Amino acid sequence: MNYFSSNFKLGILGGGQLGKMLLYDTRKFDIHTCILEASNEAPCKIACDEFHLGDLMNYEDVYNFGKQVDVLTIEIENVNVDALEDLEKEGIKVYPASKTLRTIQNKAKQKLFYIDNNLPTAAFSRFAYTSEIKETINHGGLNFPFVWKSAQFGYDGTGVKVVKSFEDLKGLPNVECIAEDLVPFKNELAVIVARNVSGETKTYPVVEMEFHPEANQVEYVICPARISEEVAKKAEAIALKTSAAFQHVGLLAVEMFQTENDEILINEVAPRPHNSGHHTIESNYTSQFEQHIRAILDLPLGVTDSKVGGVMVNLVGAEGYSGDVVYQNIETIMHMDGVTPHIYGKKQTRPFRKMGHVTIVHKDLNEARKIAEEVKNTIKVISK
Amino acid sequence: MNYFSSNFKLGILGGGQLGKMLLYDTRKFDIHTCILEASNEAPCKIACDEFHLGDLMNYEDVYNFGKQVDVLTIEIENVNVDALEDLEKEGIKVYPASKTLRTIQNKAKQKLFYIDNNLPTAAFSRFAYTSEIKETINHGGLNFPFVWKSAQFGYDGTGVKVVKSFEDLKGLPNVECIAEDLVPFKNELAVIVARNVSGETKTYPVVEMEFHPEANQVEYVICPARISEEVAKKAEAIALKTSAAFQHVGLLAVEMFQTENDEILINEVAPRPHNSGHHTIESNYTSQFEQHIRAILDLPLGVTDSKVGGVMVNLVGAEGYSGDVVYQNIETIMHMDGVTPHIYGKKQTRPFRKMGHVTIVHKDLNEARKIAEEVKNTIKVISK
Repeated sequence: MNYFSSNFKLGILGGGQLGKMLLYDTRKFDIHTCILEASNEAPCKIACDEFHLGDLMNYEDVYNFGKQVDVLTIEIENVNVDALEDLEKEGIKVYPASKTLRTIQNKAKQKLFYIDNNLPTAAFSRFAYTSEIKETINHGGLNFPFVWKSAQFGYDGTGVKVVKSFEDLKGLPNVECIAEDLVPFKNELAVIVARNVSGETKTYPVVEMEFHPEANQVEYVICPARISEEVAKKAEAIALKTSAAFQHVGLLAVEMFQTENDEILINEVAPRPHNSGHHTIESNYTSQFEQHIRAILDLPLGVTDSKVGGVMVNLVGAEGYSGDVVYQNIETIMHMDGVTPHIYGKKQTRPFRKMGHVTIVHKDLNEARKIAEEVKNTIKVISK
Repeated sequence: MNYFSSNFKLGILGGGQLGKMLLYDTRKFDIHTCILEASNEAPCKIACDEFHLGDLMNYEDVYNFGKQVDVLTIEIENVNVDALEDLEKEGIKVYPASKTLRTIQNKAKQKLFYIDNNLPTAAFSRFAYTSEIKETINHGGLNFPFVWKSAQFGYDGTGVKVVKSFEDLKGLPNVECIAEDLVPFKNELAVIVARNVSGETKTYPVVEMEFHPEANQVEYVICPARISEEVAKKAEAIALKTSAAFQHVGLLAVEMFQTENDEILINEVAPRPHNSGHHTIESNYTSQFEQHIRAILDLPLGVTDSKVGGVMVNLVGAEGYSGDVVYQNIETIMHMDGVTPHIYGKKQTRPFRKMGHVTIVHKDLNEARKIAEEVKNTIKVISK
């Protein structure tokens, strides 16, 4: 099929920043795009060909939207999977597949999938309700410390808690959850795997997520990761195996821990363009967004190598500020070498909301990392 | 002024492919954009915030549009300059300035500007009408061969003719024109100069326009040009001097000839993003489009260096085909290393219409050049 000169329609569920960046490349290829999104204020409101208002978790909204397109993809996992399953039955191409999304949406199922497919991940126990955990500890079936994770709809910072004592269990929602071994790790790594409909596969260079020593928040994504080639190869192999296990079409971002003993353990996966690949726009031969489009349209995959070193800094709303956003000192960071801000176009900031990101590229990765620190110390997302 | 979080509006005159590519970067910076364009089918129809239908040569249309924005720029030179002049008087920031556009719109005035500013260019004579040329030749004031150029609205392929005999003069329109010395040249080069409102200036690496040996059409834009450092420095210095002479704000693409004696002569200039800079999207630290926005908003200019070697191939409509466009073998070229097609989104092709371009990037420029030739021999823009 020639997507470049037909009445072909690509549907995207979700109209946030990932969708917005996908639209750069659908525009570049002149592919007709339809967005489904609940908010009229979403970053994708312009640049798509058709903007449809609707609830991504609502069966009717997703089904009716999907019936109008030829290929359907997502920019967020939390969508109505029943609708996707019915659309697949009716011949709409859905990437990622409904089955994959059903597995990934539930963290307990996701962990079981790793076990079933012999993919390395931290040991865990599964609980129908958080309240069952206490009893299990009392019976010696679980020991402190562990990581509590809500099975459904977990996000960084919510739905995840390190539990060191009974005290820490207080206040947790009484939901389906897992208790995962707290594994000491040296590095958090990620590999994005691209796989097209025909099964052609490529991996992006391993990236390193550098954490703030105190805040436990990713501060920098660094590409390539400053790790040994041996560890990088291991991480790539595990990421490829994971993508193959899902028979995944599109991008699969595989987040992993490098343990103290240089073991690689899968933390979690995202079946779409991912924060750990934003730097690829500037630093790699093919951006993750272009690659996602190539993969789901069964086009040949682009080269994934780095052109230059890349570091990405998230722009999140500063604590203590809510309201109409101001990017304080953005002009100052634009004075620095190889700095490109990406502003997502959300009008309102609030603490920790993802408002944009900044990519720093440099032939010398250490130089890029230094400039990234300057960027981080200079720009501040506040309100008017 | 903080453009990233205000009610600021950027106006762009023209909604073609250059405007479309500018919009990638206004979207990236979340800058509110308004487009004025005569066709509802234009590539810029989506991705701008406001699309206004209007005639770019009509005083009222341009004036009324310009009154609604804070900064006004162009993606095509042929716009109503009287309207721009009045808008400037009323405090709208217009980049490039009306004065510059008035000079550039008329090839005779453009040539005189070079003479007045001591900028090297081929010798020429100016005529109020083409009919005056014959008489001048008869009186010994002009010799064959020379290049006839219409003073107004000349484009590649129209408005320009090599004249070797009286026979060649037949059929030329009887308009204001120049007769320019036919200078034998080794290379056609171009340098894009960026200059922001505060006067900060940067040049992109010199590119080489490689011509088809017979068709006299640019086949490849090659960055960096395969010339000596000495010639490159000379070309850059002349481009910088030209930008300074215009006190230009924004991008100025300076096209030059490298003569047999390694002299540099200015051919013509374009006061905007230019075909000779499309490769910068993939191959340079800052794309020409982002740089244009930085310049006219008086933001710091980005680094202009190459990350990797870049070659650009124009996709023009094949001879003998008119109608609904088909990009034959586009999937084949996407198999090749470092190949990115840009499809402008024009629904109808016709012979030689610019329908898109393809960028080829590679660490080894010679390899990029080879792949570019494969691309050129493979893809064909035809009709259904």
